[in-house]
Amino acid sequence: MAMSSTDVVVIRGGQVVSTSGATAADVIVEGERIAAVVAPGSAASTAAAEGARVVDADGCYVVPGGVDVHVHLQLPMSPEATSSDTFATGTTAAAWGGTTTVIDFAGQMKGMHVRDAVEQRLAEAEGQCAIDYGLHLSMGGVDEAALKEMGTLVDEGITSFKFFMAYPGVYYSDDGQLLQAFQRCADLGSMAMIHAENGIAIDVLRDQAASRGDTGSVWHGRTRPSRLEGEAVHRAAALAEVAGAPLYIVHLSSSDALEQVTWARQRGLNVFAETCPQYLYLSIDEHLDQPGLDGLRHICSPPLRPSTTHDTLWQGLRRDELAVVSTDHCPFCDTEKLLGTDDFRVAPNGLG
Amino acid sequence: MAMSSTDVVVIRGGQVVSTSGATAADVIVEGERIAAVVAPGSAASTAAAEGARVVDADGCYVVPGGVDVHVHLQLPMSPEATSSDTFATGTTAAAWGGTTTVIDFAGQMKGMHVRDAVEQRLAEAEGQCAIDYGLHLSMGGVDEAALKEMGTLVDEGITSFKFFMAYPGVYYSDDGQLLQAFQRCADLGSMAMIHAENGIAIDVLRDQAASRGDTGSVWHGRTRPSRLEGEAVHRAAALAEVAGAPLYIVHLSSSDALEQVTWARQRGLNVFAETCPQYLYLSIDEHLDQPGLDGLRHICSPPLRPSTTHDTLWQGLRRDELAVVSTDHCPFCDTEKLLGTDDFRVAPNGLG
Amino acid sequence: MAMSSTDVVVIRGGQVVSTSGATAADVIVEGERIAAVVAPGSAASTAAAEGARVVDADGCYVVPGGVDVHVHLQLPMSPEATSSDTFATGTTAAAWGGTTTVIDFAGQMKGMHVRDAVEQRLAEAEGQCAIDYGLHLSMGGVDEAALKEMGTLVDEGITSFKFFMAYPGVYYSDDGQLLQAFQRCADLGSMAMIHAENGIAIDVLRDQAASRGDTGSVWHGRTRPSRLEGEAVHRAAALAEVAGAPLYIVHLSSSDALEQVTWARQRGLNVFAETCPQYLYLSIDEHLDQPGLDGLRHICSPPLRPSTTHDTLWQGLRRDELAVVSTDHCPFCDTEKLLGTDDFRVAPNGLG
Amino acid sequence: MAMSSTDVVVIRGGQVVSTSGATAADVIVEGERIAAVVAPGSAASTAAAEGARVVDADGCYVVPGGVDVHVHLQLPMSPEATSSDTFATGTTAAAWGGTTTVIDFAGQMKGMHVRDAVEQRLAEAEGQCAIDYGLHLSMGGVDEAALKEMGTLVDEGITSFKFFMAYPGVYYSDDGQLLQAFQRCADLGSMAMIHAENGIAIDVLRDQAASRGDTGSVWHGRTRPSRLEGEAVHRAAALAEVAGAPLYIVHLSSSDALEQVTWARQRGLNVFAETCPQYLYLSIDEHLDQPGLDGLRHICSPPLRPSTTHDTLWQGLRRDELAVVSTDHCPFCDTEKLLGTDDFRVAPNGLG
Repeated sequence: MAMSSTDVVVIRGGQVVSTSGATAADVIVEGERIAAVVAPGSAASTAAAEGARVVDADGCYVVPGGVDVHVHLQLPMSPEATSSDTFATGTTAAAWGGTTTVIDFAGQMKGMHVRDAVEQRLAEAEGQCAIDYGLHLSMGGVDEAALKEMGTLVDEGITSFKFFMAYPGVYYSDDGQLLQAFQRCADLGSMAMIHAENGIAIDVLRDQAASRGDTGSVWHGRTRPSRLEGEAVHRAAALAEVAGAPLYIVHLSSSDALEQVTWARQRGLNVFAETCPQYLYLSIDEHLDQPGLDGLRHICSPPLRPSTTHDTLWQGLRRDELAVVSTDHCPFCDTEKLLGTDDFRVAPNGLG
Repeated sequence: MAMSSTDVVVIRGGQVVSTSGATAADVIVEGERIAAVVAPGSAASTAAAEGARVVDADGCYVVPGGVDVHVHLQLPMSPEATSSDTFATGTTAAAWGGTTTVIDFAGQMKGMHVRDAVEQRLAEAEGQCAIDYGLHLSMGGVDEAALKEMGTLVDEGITSFKFFMAYPGVYYSDDGQLLQAFQRCADLGSMAMIHAENGIAIDVLRDQAASRGDTGSVWHGRTRPSRLEGEAVHRAAALAEVAGAPLYIVHLSSSDALEQVTWARQRGLNVFAETCPQYLYLSIDEHLDQPGLDGLRHICSPPLRPSTTHDTLWQGLRRDELAVVSTDHCPFCDTEKLLGTDDFRVAPNGLG
Repeated sequence: MAMSSTDVVVIRGGQVVSTSGATAADVIVEGERIAAVVAPGSAASTAAAEGARVVDADGCYVVPGGVDVHVHLQLPMSPEATSSDTFATGTTAAAWGGTTTVIDFAGQMKGMHVRDAVEQRLAEAEGQCAIDYGLHLSMGGVDEAALKEMGTLVDEGITSFKFFMAYPGVYYSDDGQLLQAFQRCADLGSMAMIHAENGIAIDVLRDQAASRGDTGSVWHGRTRPSRLEGEAVHRAAALAEVAGAPLYIVHLSSSDALEQVTWARQRGLNVFAETCPQYLYLSIDEHLDQPGLDGLRHICSPPLRPSTTHDTLWQGLRRDELAVVSTDHCPFCDTEKLLGTDDFRVAPNGLG
Repeated sequence: MAMSSTDVVVIRGGQVVSTSGATAADVIVEGERIAAVVAPGSAASTAAAEGARVVDADGCYVVPGGVDVHVHLQLPMSPEATSSDTFATGTTAAAWGGTTTVIDFAGQMKGMHVRDAVEQRLAEAEGQCAIDYGLHLSMGGVDEAALKEMGTLVDEGITSFKFFMAYPGVYYSDDGQLLQAFQRCADLGSMAMIHAENGIAIDVLRDQAASRGDTGSVWHGRTRPSRLEGEAVHRAAALAEVAGAPLYIVHLSSSDALEQVTWARQRGLNVFAETCPQYLYLSIDEHLDQPGLDGLRHICSPPLRPSTTHDTLWQGLRRDELAVVSTDHCPFCDTEKLLGTDDFRVAPNGLG
């Protein structure tokens, strides 16, 4: 318990922000740990400051480190395109922005052991990260073995499992696989996460667009209509209700999808959703519907939506229908983005 | 134009019922055709009665012949079970009940020509029917050829096409097939009809029940939860919206499903729904949840629902959210129903 | 029953429109009465035409005479302003437009016998009308005596009673009066009609506007916000629900009001609504918000709404949330409209 | 800053509950003030405990003092009945239950100065309270003078103003008074509070019941139907929307009322609501519908509702549609309750 005073930092005079607002308070840090939150001018405050290094936060907010629950560092999207932030660069950048925890994904695919996916991802992160990190498990191959192995992860702290209604033939699970996976989550007390877009229908629209020669970046958006995101949210909520599992909608982008989250929550279901800055600030009209690289740079899935969506999403955050803002950070350089020049379907993040 | 007076019948003195209510009127029938609706006591009424056979309808309602838009006569459900009413017996029974038109289905399956399905069904009905009849086309094998052939039917009066979200491996279409089929309906100005239950998820529940030894008739209902009917209605409406096609939900059975029809109609979509007498009068608690034959007799798909559903469906009819009452007439004798004794999945109409 | 053939007219070859669509049919009129609707080419058709005058309707729709259920002919709005169509001119104009029935209002006020209001109005209409007419009773003075007298009107065919949530001090009924009036309607099997705007709150806004010097015609609209129409619809529906009476919303003008009609109908209440051409085609932006006479000409209550409302109302008609289109015909000449030049509150139809 | 160590208490080893859950932490109290929340086992924890009195909270939750935002201590309801807890007994009882702050009401009536109402109430509380207390202002006489005086209270910390849609002739404000009061709240950045029941309509039902001889306690409930609470919530939200003011619904009791709060919040309005334990646990069927004193004891306004309401209200709390649980503490002894023996309208809290 002995601690040299040089290990103690007092952040003094700021407004400490918590879930219930901002209050004048001093924060005492011992080593890597917040040891106390102290009323300014109290005896405890005086005592804590003795011999400690004092940081003057007068006029500042003192905010907890950010937690970004959805990032994809050094993720291979295709043989030619791996997301450009490594665990080292990505977590360093996060630290500079005040984010002190990120949660990435271990990616299991068809025929792969869940355990192997986790080991591999942990090995990649090992010793690289500037901040705290954790992993969700992303499952692309839901079968009996994989469902069974989910249980072994929960004890070591991987308690959230992501499934895909998009990307047929790659990560996609059908409704029977989803139902069984959600049942397994219910058994384990785990959270089911879902990429909610109807990938089977979207693939029809993508192929129709391509065969018409509509291959520009804006068609990435037009072939993923928001109605098919809303539909998938509704369906995932229905399957989760039948299974008795809590559900977390990742990267919700549209009014149609938010309407269904609201519907599910009004029904009393444990359905939660996150949105991302790109859906709060960028739009298909202004950003995705541009020629060449300018448009390609704005390809992400789900796609950008009309700018009228922004207000709706902000309202959703205010009403707690949207519980989280994450980044879905998955950056690519222009070289990779340009792969989609002749066909939006090939651009990274434009994966079907 | 010459017509012997013996061919003319005057139905006199009744209350003639139409879509705008009941009015005192006489009905003049020439041969097989309603020639006039006449105000009682008018000169036209007097003239029409000369030499005609007069039927006294005093104190009676005079109602148009009923149209049952959803029947399955002599339908082979499995090698052992064909629905027990033939075109002859079924249409004769209909006539006795005041129904003068039925619409049955020609059933196309995977790899089958649409045209062949129609020809075969017409041949079965030819010369057998006591009343008027028509056909919907039921498509179990949506592919490029079948989609193309749909166009040839519209000119000869088959303008409604039924698809299945239930019965994987038999009639089931996936969401990509549905989207293309709905697009084709939109092009043709045809009506898309849908059996709205999530068959993929239901099959998981059925197999889980069977492997637990839950094989009684009530499990036919418990493994087809109403939430998975509501989900399918929502999804079908979403796909129809993307395709721009009108949609008709067959045999709607549950509050969950009705809620989604209402949602779709409030959205301004051309979504219509029918329900059937079994869903207005029978229930899982009282009828399906009985041992042995008593339970098996009440197997139909979608299954009977809790009796609290009845009021909701009647309200739906009153508010026009439910546009039609049809019968989904598809009768089996006890011998066939008893096939499900050891496993509800084998009972006719218990098809997965 | 003998009728000279010159009294018989056959309208031949047209498409006869009824509530279930348009059908090829001939219409036989004897004197003032439609005697028969006849299938073209039938023996009945041939017989009917003998000696009759034949009107060729080939290529035409044959439509029933229109019924305008909401008109105000020769209505004194103030000492200086009486609506400019008399029973004679108004019904003649109606006939030219194909409207063959109008329903006007007898207006009872505080302290007046209901019976006297009816007699007076009938006397004004007597012998003046070119077409059929009927009366609703408008009650401005709901008290014990008036409630009792309502019963005497029902037997002679006045079965709909209009009340006002607007116009405090003139026609206004408070919620206690409305509840009792609705209870009386429920007892009598009559229809309660309501002018649904919160007149008490609106008067505050009107006086505030006037005291700020905001006296132009657009302020007629701005001081009657659509939210206060929606509120009144909700309140009237609540009182009607408690009383067990059917309710008819007159001249519904706004999306807010339609939302509440939809809510009430989804709840299963017998709530109906009418809108009017002015709310389907004109708007506050384009028509009411003009200087001088141009703006004053467009004053009506409820006021014109933003043009974005038009689509919503058309959707309401399509979904049957709006059951009726009437005119609320109550015309004034420019001389009367100009009375509002210095204060919109004085313009006819701008009554508070 | 000097503080004798005897003034310092450390609550050690418990789970400290805050808005974000429960965490292992020690709480350091200096005098009347929480001086620090400290991580167990940290150097700060060790230092704080030196010389302090240590309370062992091992295995306990350490919860902040409760705030009951709605109480009525020593409130005269009628000449014969004053609520039986004084500021002294009521706040002492609160302290024993862990509630360390109560907010009562200063009651302004027609013709009374707002300032006088506050002074009088403060004088009554002065020196009597065992815990912290605050005041809302309850306004029964909204007029120009009272609206003006509201401003003087805000600076001294009375920032919430309660109005009544119930109790005509006593506290009742009409919609014009409410609109002006809400506008004033909007100007002042204050919160408008509302007792939401349609008192005008309720008085009609009460008098009808009494004149029929229905005077038992259950009629207190039956004459205040939940629909008229829902209506009032809708109306108050509409007026608050027009005025631009935030709105707080006190003692929400019914599903109908909650539905309208949800509607308002979905619309994006700053509408909040509280419910009370009596509405979460008691019901009209089990508690109010009893003969004699047993029923009279359960009279409160709004009245108890059907027990099916309980689940709905708990769901509302879970979804944050209900933001607060307060008590509306306003106790009476049997002697006072028995005043309603022959007429529920005379029982305390049965006020119309």
